[in-house]
Amino acid sequence: MAIRIGIAGHGNLGRGVECAIRQNPDMELAAIFTRRDPETVAPLTPGLQAIPFSRIDSWKDTIDVMIICGGSATDLPTQTPELARWFNVIDSFDTHARIPEHFAAVDAATKKSNHIGIISVGWDPGLFSLNRLISQATLPQGNDETFWGKGVSQGHSDAIRRLAGVIDARQYTIPVEEALNKVRSGENPKLTTRQKHTRLCYVVAEQGADREKIAHEIKTMPNYFADYDTTVNFISAAELKRDHEGIPHGGFVIRTGFTGPNSENTHIAEFSLKLDSNPEFTASVMVAYARAAYRLKCEGQSGCRTVFDIAPALLDRRSGEELRKTLL
Amino acid sequence: MAIRIGIAGHGNLGRGVECAIRQNPDMELAAIFTRRDPETVAPLTPGLQAIPFSRIDSWKDTIDVMIICGGSATDLPTQTPELARWFNVIDSFDTHARIPEHFAAVDAATKKSNHIGIISVGWDPGLFSLNRLISQATLPQGNDETFWGKGVSQGHSDAIRRLAGVIDARQYTIPVEEALNKVRSGENPKLTTRQKHTRLCYVVAEQGADREKIAHEIKTMPNYFADYDTTVNFISAAELKRDHEGIPHGGFVIRTGFTGPNSENTHIAEFSLKLDSNPEFTASVMVAYARAAYRLKCEGQSGCRTVFDIAPALLDRRSGEELRKTLL
Repeated sequence: MAIRIGIAGHGNLGRGVECAIRQNPDMELAAIFTRRDPETVAPLTPGLQAIPFSRIDSWKDTIDVMIICGGSATDLPTQTPELARWFNVIDSFDTHARIPEHFAAVDAATKKSNHIGIISVGWDPGLFSLNRLISQATLPQGNDETFWGKGVSQGHSDAIRRLAGVIDARQYTIPVEEALNKVRSGENPKLTTRQKHTRLCYVVAEQGADREKIAHEIKTMPNYFADYDTTVNFISAAELKRDHEGIPHGGFVIRTGFTGPNSENTHIAEFSLKLDSNPEFTASVMVAYARAAYRLKCEGQSGCRTVFDIAPALLDRRSGEELRKTLL
Repeated sequence: MAIRIGIAGHGNLGRGVECAIRQNPDMELAAIFTRRDPETVAPLTPGLQAIPFSRIDSWKDTIDVMIICGGSATDLPTQTPELARWFNVIDSFDTHARIPEHFAAVDAATKKSNHIGIISVGWDPGLFSLNRLISQATLPQGNDETFWGKGVSQGHSDAIRRLAGVIDARQYTIPVEEALNKVRSGENPKLTTRQKHTRLCYVVAEQGADREKIAHEIKTMPNYFADYDTTVNFISAAELKRDHEGIPHGGFVIRTGFTGPNSENTHIAEFSLKLDSNPEFTASVMVAYARAAYRLKCEGQSGCRTVFDIAPALLDRRSGEELRKTLL
């Protein structure tokens, strides 16, 4: 019997989950839930009608795992613990600093309801975190660096959109090739924020807006841009649509470690991702972890987990025997 | 209380384990066991005396995990199941085709004795296998390729050494840059054995040996060299010692996957290692998995495992709380 997946929220991430389920023959899409008018939601799956969020609890016996596709700022801190009352849950909570409190909330909710929750699933947090952990555990003496990009940062794009005179914007985070190569060579450089990444902005301004002022406001914006070398390009709405519709992203986790009687041998472990679609890849990772959540629940386990707690074999639909034979 | 580690076999791998234990403050070296005359074994640890293999069973209550550092061809198929009678065991069994039968033997032995065994630990099999599994599970539609090198292959070096007229030899496996870049670009090429790697040999020949004949025998050797573009260089024993004493290795696991309603988006996940010392890195990985074996045993588990079955958090000495706070 297939694992029945529910999707809570049908933005870019939810649509990505809908696509990913089709690539996993042991899963089926049970329902999509939305807070919008269900008539305005168009699932990719022919004949499927989105269900209002308010009726989600009535699906508790017909969905094995709910993949929650809300945002980290305001949705997930309440949605994930709430939905854990009725479902095994997966989310992609990515506010790194608030992970401990989110974990505690989901752990309490899932233990009470006897479900499994896996939070902060995706690539960072997610597969990147996993690589940081494994490379630190296997090379305890050393240093690692994470670089992001080239990719679109939604948070930075939004920050630009909030400025007066701005109609739309797209911000790319770009790793500095020179810094990347220094880390990769085992040189172990000390790098400042400015030395690691640059920020490239494409802005659609209102007619007659003061472009110089907008560019200045972007470049001096604290936290978001002030610590970086930032380039601002003004383009038309048509150009933005033509050239910047995609949501690519990616990055690099590189650890340099040392072994030997006098730490004389250097080892470099590097994991990188180059993603055409950040939400679709994140969704694919969430679907694999949904399988793990289902299996843990079937074993009678409950409580909150992260990618650190999941044995990799649980992610794949094949048996342990087949995995050992073909992949080990 | 520290985790007490035993080392069975004190070649390059065993010495690597001895070094790695020092980098892990929650572990201590309990004893080194050898089949050679213990007087001829020189541990790095001051004052430590190697113990004859024949007395290993008397250490069963004072060692938490035995790291077995024998060879895959003849040692491990018998050593690992035998030592599992008395100990939790880790090995680096790397004959890919025989992993299923080795797993079965160690599983039976560990279940009977109520111990944990983790086999085929290292980087390939090991961390490379882990990356193949995770990238296939998260990108089920796609293809992956593994490249090895630049690095010394002991098996290929040994094969050359067995030829008449050869005193010593070192063989490097080298990935073909062009093939690597094709895979990395998402082109998804079909590659033959010859297109993926070349083989570079440094040979010390006996005085008066027929070098042309030796080179021909190497290049046409079935399984080892015949399917590759192979270069043979003759050098002096002094040059071999000066330039080829190290045991570097490494490689790349690259998966290209596709997502989206019409599989129109491409994603590339790449994991690579660049190792100054293959045995020391393998040893470091084994030590991290020894920690996992100890923890599973403490939970009351038994039986054989591979890297696929181990939750990553078990590899690191820090608590789940600290890992979530600092690495997720």
